[in-house]
Order: sequence, then structure tokens, then C-alpha cells
Amino acid sequence: MIKEFQKLLKEKNIDYYIVPTDDDHQSETVGNFYQARAYLSGFNGSAGTLLVKQDTAYLWTDGRYFIQAAKQLEDGITLMKMAQKDVPTLLEFLKQNVKDGDVIAFDGQTMNCQFVLQMEEVIDKDYQIQCTDLLKDFWLDRPARSCEKAYIYDIKYHGLSAHEKIEIIQEYMKENHCDSHIITTLDDIAWIFNLRGSDIPSSPTALAFALITLDQSFLYLQANTYNQSMIDSYKEENIMIKDYSEIYEDAMSLKGRVLLNTASVNYELFNQIECEIVDGMNPSQAFKAIKNETEIKNTKNAHLKDSIATTKFMYWLKQNYGKIEMDEISVAQKILEFKEQQDLFVDTSFTTICAFNENAALMHYHATNEEHSTIDKDGMLLIDCGSQYLDGTTDMTRTYILGNVSDIQKKHFTMVLQGMLALQNATFLYGCTGQNLDILARQPMWSEDIDYQCGTGHGVGHFLNVHEGPHGIRPRPKFQGEECVFEAGMIVTDEPGIYLEGQYGIRLENELLCVEGKENEYGQFLHFEVLTLVPIDLDGIDTTLLTYKEKKWLNDYHQTVYQTLSPYLTNEEKTWLKQYTRAI
Amino acid sequence: MIKEFQKLLKEKNIDYYIVPTDDDHQSETVGNFYQARAYLSGFNGSAGTLLVKQDTAYLWTDGRYFIQAAKQLEDGITLMKMAQKDVPTLLEFLKQNVKDGDVIAFDGQTMNCQFVLQMEEVIDKDYQIQCTDLLKDFWLDRPARSCEKAYIYDIKYHGLSAHEKIEIIQEYMKENHCDSHIITTLDDIAWIFNLRGSDIPSSPTALAFALITLDQSFLYLQANTYNQSMIDSYKEENIMIKDYSEIYEDAMSLKGRVLLNTASVNYELFNQIECEIVDGMNPSQAFKAIKNETEIKNTKNAHLKDSIATTKFMYWLKQNYGKIEMDEISVAQKILEFKEQQDLFVDTSFTTICAFNENAALMHYHATNEEHSTIDKDGMLLIDCGSQYLDGTTDMTRTYILGNVSDIQKKHFTMVLQGMLALQNATFLYGCTGQNLDILARQPMWSEDIDYQCGTGHGVGHFLNVHEGPHGIRPRPKFQGEECVFEAGMIVTDEPGIYLEGQYGIRLENELLCVEGKENEYGQFLHFEVLTLVPIDLDGIDTTLLTYKEKKWLNDYHQTVYQTLSPYLTNEEKTWLKQYTRAI
Repeated sequence: MIKEFQKLLKEKNIDYYIVPTDDDHQSETVGNFYQARAYLSGFNGSAGTLLVKQDTAYLWTDGRYFIQAAKQLEDGITLMKMAQKDVPTLLEFLKQNVKDGDVIAFDGQTMNCQFVLQMEEVIDKDYQIQCTDLLKDFWLDRPARSCEKAYIYDIKYHGLSAHEKIEIIQEYMKENHCDSHIITTLDDIAWIFNLRGSDIPSSPTALAFALITLDQSFLYLQANTYNQSMIDSYKEENIMIKDYSEIYEDAMSLKGRVLLNTASVNYELFNQIECEIVDGMNPSQAFKAIKNETEIKNTKNAHLKDSIATTKFMYWLKQNYGKIEMDEISVAQKILEFKEQQDLFVDTSFTTICAFNENAALMHYHATNEEHSTIDKDGMLLIDCGSQYLDGTTDMTRTYILGNVSDIQKKHFTMVLQGMLALQNATFLYGCTGQNLDILARQPMWSEDIDYQCGTGHGVGHFLNVHEGPHGIRPRPKFQGEECVFEAGMIVTDEPGIYLEGQYGIRLENELLCVEGKENEYGQFLHFEVLTLVPIDLDGIDTTLLTYKEKKWLNDYHQTVYQTLSPYLTNEEKTWLKQYTRAI
Repeated sequence: MIKEFQKLLKEKNIDYYIVPTDDDHQSETVGNFYQARAYLSGFNGSAGTLLVKQDTAYLWTDGRYFIQAAKQLEDGITLMKMAQKDVPTLLEFLKQNVKDGDVIAFDGQTMNCQFVLQMEEVIDKDYQIQCTDLLKDFWLDRPARSCEKAYIYDIKYHGLSAHEKIEIIQEYMKENHCDSHIITTLDDIAWIFNLRGSDIPSSPTALAFALITLDQSFLYLQANTYNQSMIDSYKEENIMIKDYSEIYEDAMSLKGRVLLNTASVNYELFNQIECEIVDGMNPSQAFKAIKNETEIKNTKNAHLKDSIATTKFMYWLKQNYGKIEMDEISVAQKILEFKEQQDLFVDTSFTTICAFNENAALMHYHATNEEHSTIDKDGMLLIDCGSQYLDGTTDMTRTYILGNVSDIQKKHFTMVLQGMLALQNATFLYGCTGQNLDILARQPMWSEDIDYQCGTGHGVGHFLNVHEGPHGIRPRPKFQGEECVFEAGMIVTDEPGIYLEGQYGIRLENELLCVEGKENEYGQFLHFEVLTLVPIDLDGIDTTLLTYKEKKWLNDYHQTVYQTLSPYLTNEEKTWLKQYTRAI
């Protein structure tokens, strides 16, 4: 496909065409309408940016996808491994290569505004920017943009009306001398307006824009996605619904100072604005990251249900492995069945990763109907799955031991466990960020000269995106605001791993809730409460490698798992769970 | 003293007078001429800023000095504990309190330029700034400014001529389109020009300014501190010596773009400049932090000598405790005697901290002739001492067990040891900063709801300041540039502790050299080589608290200590050392 597209570039006299993986809202996961990068390059991982020149092409992606991209990329596309020594970023590459007179083009509505601003800053050549969606006429069987029904999320699950949330934001706007605030990120809009939908795979959000002024709010929705009752409900909260595309027009007529986040607004929308722009993180990012009591109570219930489902699945897996036929697809389906039996289940929170042996080394591998492994050998099965329940979002990974595994596999499994336990049992002083905490999970791997080339943890939304900021746990902040300090009420995942190309992948992941510990002369101590209550496969652990403290951590965790889950299990499951949560 | 000074403020109609702890060079330690803050407030710790109003006064200092300041501050001065919840910074305090028409005054030559710029940014009132050194006429017995002989540091100890270093800096200036570079920090000047002196206590630097242009360099020295041979030597390297105060005049006539660091330039000098200012870290900061082979070889020798001296001292202490009279002053003197026996010893690198029992809880306690403890009870003796040898600078802390200590004291000693060992044995991927590493040393304390309210480690100069940047190890960067990544060749201290007010203080400190480990598909791994080779008092350790790995770390370290030092010891010392480095 890329060669055909390069012909088009020649015709149009375009020297560089950039294809990010974004929609108009800079969503992390995008609908089929926005999959141009996968369409052109062949690489279908969730993250990557394609740069097409007339004779060459380059694909930047991160450590999660190095192996997968190398496998999938069409001939003629060079893989640019992000954050590796001597590999320039896209920006650096452009700075080094763009010449006077060159034309750089992209679709302005799916292009990150901040990227363009940075580009303008670093490239000191006389080049031209063209906003044009070349895919429009090129991608003939392009799927339509999603336009599903939206709805208002019941307050019993989250505890705060849109009106109250908007007041908090207006307060923030006043403090920062802003007259209006444009919001384009779907999870922020969903949180503020208690709006939900299903336009994005595995995320219960609706395609929307929002504008908040000091005395009114506007919600821009696609036609036919809302009904009169929504119009009325929102009207009561002083919120007016307008048409999705009207935001571009309204942006033009803004006066005074408008607050927006250039890191998440698309370039075309940014370009419409003529008044003063105050560039900053959407305040809703920070507000929604700290879950309130209603959200925490509901989230715990969602995790209980998800833990029951995945523990029942583990029993099923351990009972049936080697007895019945199973493969990565059928096993993922089986988990889904257990989840669907739980109350208020809506959807998975991301495409389940079910990866056996060498497939699991591809950090974000997805089995397809065409290509997947049968599970009939000795080995390790990595399952990373999450759910959207009306009362909360979950994310969990377990690696299961099937048959015999080698001593080194057990050693690696144990190292990953040590990393996860060290973080989930950490006590830390208020003021810590994810950059401070990351090494706790990573040290067991680093001490053996191994790294997992991704973050250790991410925030999780409340019946919202499974990845949400601003906080996260990784060595260096990846997103604006990720260097924020941990606050009680924040939820974060804890998911170290080991990925050995061609061999196997191990990841263990619990979700953690940040809670207050002791407050004394040193300050406020914080620690984590574990939300995920699912056994860690004892068959994978080399107990000789664990310290006394680590054994106690694991045994205490497993005791909690047993006590919490056993009332919901059959007698057979219970007997089995007793054995799989035994003290070691 | 403060009340008299407040009268002067009333006379002069000054509403706020700021007294920082700085000289014209923003040196960390300042000469007696610059001790106005101590003179006015009574608090003589190394860091603090005094704000005097006509009726009230406030002293900001950091966690190291909370206890000491509370003890020493004159009546009428409120202690402002930095980085504590609900305690405003000086800047926040001014922002909250300054009113229209107020006058804020300070001595511009000792006032940090960046602070004034920040002040101008955050205080939105119509106030007036007055640059005036009120102490000039007020402090009648003020000591004279130091004016000691300067000299050129022999290349055999450091390996690089001033000319070569200036070329590197000029290269950096060209890359950043700068025509000139003003340097005011004494250690940067000392490093670039291979200049040494003794104007600053425990730092072998000379009071100086420097100006580097693209084709010439100027060194501004006090009259009578240099001789003709220095003039000639520098001339050969295209460096011209000018008078110390001429920098203020020369700054006025600069053209083009001048590179300087507003974080370290004084406000008055900054105010002289009329051309474009490029504000950035002095490039020499980053260059000098990475020690070259000659420096590393020499530094290792300095550490060997210092380790011999302090180990001989430890033998003396253990032999003589309870037998002869000793106190904090005499013991500090004893250490100095052992150090002075070593080749190329010049000076201590900071005032030795010798603190017994509750005195050690004052993190930077200094015994005085008037007030100090005798060492004749059971307890813990904390000694933090460092040396300036011509071949390198050292810094080391040990806490010694004398007589009987409680189980909880041993537990705390062991926790501090665990923290130090965890950091010194860390393996980490290139890209890590001190913010990533800090928690390794701190976690044993945090897990028991204890914190040491200071950084874990700081860079160390090469026959230069014992504290030097840009790198450091603490949860949040304190200085500009401290968030820099660790590079092979950097030296850093590793000094966790526990300080219990009124009871005792424990600190263990090794110096570490960052070295390259394995390079593989994950990147370049780094780890530390320990420079300090001094036994850790086994009498303080509760071995039941150590994991197998921690015991191995300690035993391996002690084996190296014994093997390295024993050739330099007497037979009695050797027999004793064998016992004190035994495997546990």
C-alpha cells in the first residue's frame, strides 16, 4: 500500500506526509475510521507514527511493539525504535532532514497541535505546512466514523453531578484568569458531563467536544447520538448540546483567554482560535484521577467481580489444560464468558491479550483468527485482560504455568513477582511521583541486566479509559503532568515483566489504590491497597529466591484472596483455591 | 541583634529586608565576611534565608537544620520549615504579604538573580526593590573579605589544560549561538582555569569571576592574590587576568548574546548587562561532573589514603573508648591527625561533624569549644568527615557503636545500612536520574514511617567543592540540572540516615563512582564502584534483619576493605580489622 501512496505524494509534490495514530480527540485507542497508519504500513499495534517520503518511509513505535512492528511492517518502511540510543525522534529526524522548500503535510484534525508547534520551533528551514487528509480519496473502503448512542452515567456509580464538576472547573478557570475552556479529550468530557457512549473500542466514551465558559457549558455531539431526554437533563444543569462540528466555528469567536491543552487539542481546532490561549493540562485530568468515596466503593465491587471471574477462569484453565483442545482465541473467549456472568458487565476495557510462550514476548500481542497458537505444549500463558463494569474499570495480568517450565523460567517469573510485590508493598512519603517509585518494580530485573521496555504502571479511569493520567509509574514522564505526585484516591497498575524474544513473556499486574498511612513529623506517608485479588500461579515460583519478607507479602496477599473470593466459589473451586493460595 | 536591625529598617523605611546565605558567587559555604544571616539571627547552620520586617522576622531553612535553628534562633524570629506541608516558601510568603508601596531591600551582590526574577514574576503588587547592603554600617566588627594567594593546579592531578577546557566551552557556546559566557561560580572557574586558592572554608577555590568570549578569556582576581608567573602561564593559554571588581564594568559593555546562569549569578552583576542574555546551566557543570581517567586514578588514591586514615582512627577509637577521656572536639582532632599523616593532605573538605548520641540527631551539628559532649557513656558516635588531598576530595560518614546500645538502635542502624547497600549495589539502565534512584536508599526507613529530611547523595568535586552538581540523589531536584542522567565517571555520595530528636542520629556514607556495566538489547546498564573503603561497625548490626543478599553485599564489601587496607596497617590494626570485617 505504501508504494501506491508514495505515488500520490509525488503527484501532489509533498515531501513528507505524517500519519499519526490519532482521532480528532487524540484518543489513545481510535476507531476504524482513523486507522490510516495501520492501513498504509501494515503495522497494527496501538501506537506508532508513520512518516512517508516519496521514496522512503519510517515508522516510529515504542518498546512494546519493536518485535511486532518488525514482523508486520511492509517492505520499504524503516522501523524507528523509540527511546533507543542513536535513534532520532520524529522531530529530530525532521530537523535533520527537512530542506528549504520542502512540503510537510498531514491531516490537521488528527494531528497533535503540540507536535506541530514543536516542529515549528526546531526546524529552522523555509518549509511549508499543508493540512490535507490524503487518505480521504486514497483509502477507498475506509470504514465510516462511529456514531453510537450516547447516554448519561447514573450518579449512583460516581457521586457527583455534571453541574458540581463544572463548578470545580470554573473555579479553576477563575483562579487562572481564563474566560473559557475547550476540552477535546473524550475521557475528560465523559467525566465532566457524566456522559458515556461507545464510539471508541473498549472505552465507554462518545465522540464529543466541550466548551465551558464562566457561566455556561456546551457539549458538541454527533447528530442522532442523543435524545430529547438528554437535552432536557443537560439543560437543567445549564449545559447546551450543539452539533459535533460546530466547535470549529465556535472556537473562532472566542474572546478573552481560553484554557486548552495543546498536548491534546488537534492542530486544526487550535488554528481556528484567535483569542489568547492559556496552554495547560485540562484541570479535569487531575480532578478525575483522585477517586471519590462513591467511586472507590463501586470500583472495589467491580474488582471483586472481576477477580471472581478470572479466578474461576484460572480453575477452569488448570483443570482443562492438556485435557481439552484450547488456543489463544478460545481461551480469551472463555475468560469473557466468566466475566459476562458478572453483574453490570458492559465490555472488555481493552482487547484481551492471551499469548502463549513466544507470542507473549510481543508485549502487546493480539491473537487473530488467522494467526494464533494452540495451547497444547509446556509453557507460560500470559493473559492481560480488563473489564468495563458500570461500577468500575479493571485491568489485570497473570501468567499461568502450564506443564513443565525450566528453572530459568521460574527464576524470571519469581523476579517479576518480586518487582510487583516491592511496589505494591511500598510505603512512601507524600510528594513522591511515579518516577520515584518505578525502580522498586524494575530493580529485580535490572539487577540481572534485563529491562521491560515500557512503563510499570498507569492510572485507570472509573468506567472510563483503562489508561488515564495524569499519574503513572515509569522512569521518565511520558505525558505532560505524569510527573504529578501521588495522592490518596489515585488508582494505578503495577505491572513489571520480562519479555524474551522468541522464547516467552511474563507479566504480573495488580491494580493498586493509593491510601493514606501514618502522618507524623516527617509528613504524610502513603501506601497502596491492592484492588486485584487473583492468585499468582505458585507453580511458577522458585521459593528459594524469595526473602522472608517477600514470602510474607505473598502469603498475606494469597490469604486475602482466599478469604475474599471463597464465598463466591463452588466447593471444587474453593478446594482448588485453598491449594493455590497456600502459604509458601 | 535582630531588634536593633529592625530599628534601622524603620529609619530607612524598608518593609522587607532579605538576608540570604551567599557571597558574590552564590557559594554554598561562605567566608566570615558574608555571615550576615548568622550575625543577625543567631542561627549558624550552613543554609538559611532571613527575612526581616520592622516588627517580625522569619528564617527559612531545610530539614537538616530544623532542630538546630529552633535552638539557636533569637527571640522574635519565626522558624519556617522548608518543604513542610502548609509552610509557604519565601516567595509564596512575599506574594501573600507584600502590599502596594512596600519596599523590599537586599544586598544585590549577594542576592541570587533568579530569586529576584521570580519575585518580580509572582508578586503582582506595586512595590519597590532597593539594592543596599545595610550590614555595611550596622555590622561594626565585620571580618574582612578573604584575599588569600591563588595558584595553578598541577595538570598531573587532573589531566586537562585550561586551554583545552576553554575550547570545549567555546564549542558549546558556538553550538548555542553565544558570543560570551560569564561564570561566577567559584568551582566552575577553578575547574575551567585549573585555578585553586583558599578563600572559602574547606574549598580550595579563590574568589574570582570569569568571562569567556569566542577568542579570549578573562579571569578576574583580587589584587595581590596572583603573581607574575601566573600572569605569564595564563597568557600562554590566551587568558588575561583582570581585577576582581572589573567584571561589573566589563559586563556592561558586552555585545551579542551572553550565556550565564541566573540561578548562580548575583542580581547586581545581572543588572549590569545590557545585551541579550541566554540563561542556562554553566556548561562546565556538566563537563566537570564526569571525571576523566586521570582524575579517577587520582581520586581512588585519595580515597585509599582517607580510608587508611579513618580506619586507623576507628581502631584508635575502639581501643581507647572507656579508657581515656575523649569528647567530640578531641575526637575530631584525632581524626584530623590521622589524615594529616597522609600524603598530599591539604585540608578537611568541610567542618568535621563529630556528634555523640542526641547531638547526632542534629543532622549538621558542629561541636564548639563552648558546647560539646564528652564521650563517656554508652551510645552512638556519628562522624562525617572529608578531606581535600591534592589528588582528590573525599566525604565519608560512619556511626560507631560505643558500649551498649538498645535493640531498637541496632534495628535503626541496620535499616540505614540496608538503604546504603541497596543504592551502592544498584544496577540501572542509562537514562536514570537521582530522582529514580533515591527510593532505593530511603525505602527501609519509609517502610517504618521514618524519613531523613535531606537528599541521599550529592556529587563531589575533584580537589574542589565537596558538594557539586549537577547530579545528585534526592526525590525531587533541588538545583537546576540535578535531574540530569547518571553518566559513567560521575561520583556521588550514598548517605541515608535516621535522626531521632533528643535521642540519636545514624548516618552511613560511602562515595560511589558510576561505571558502565553490560550493554545489551535493553541499553547500557550502569552500576557503582565503591570508593570509600572503611569498615561499617558490625557492633551496630542486627544480622537477623538482613537478607541473604544484603549479608553477601556487606561481606563482600568488608573483604575488599580488608584486602585493600591491610598492607598499610600495623599488625595490631590488621588483627583488629580482620575481626571488624569478618563475614556475618
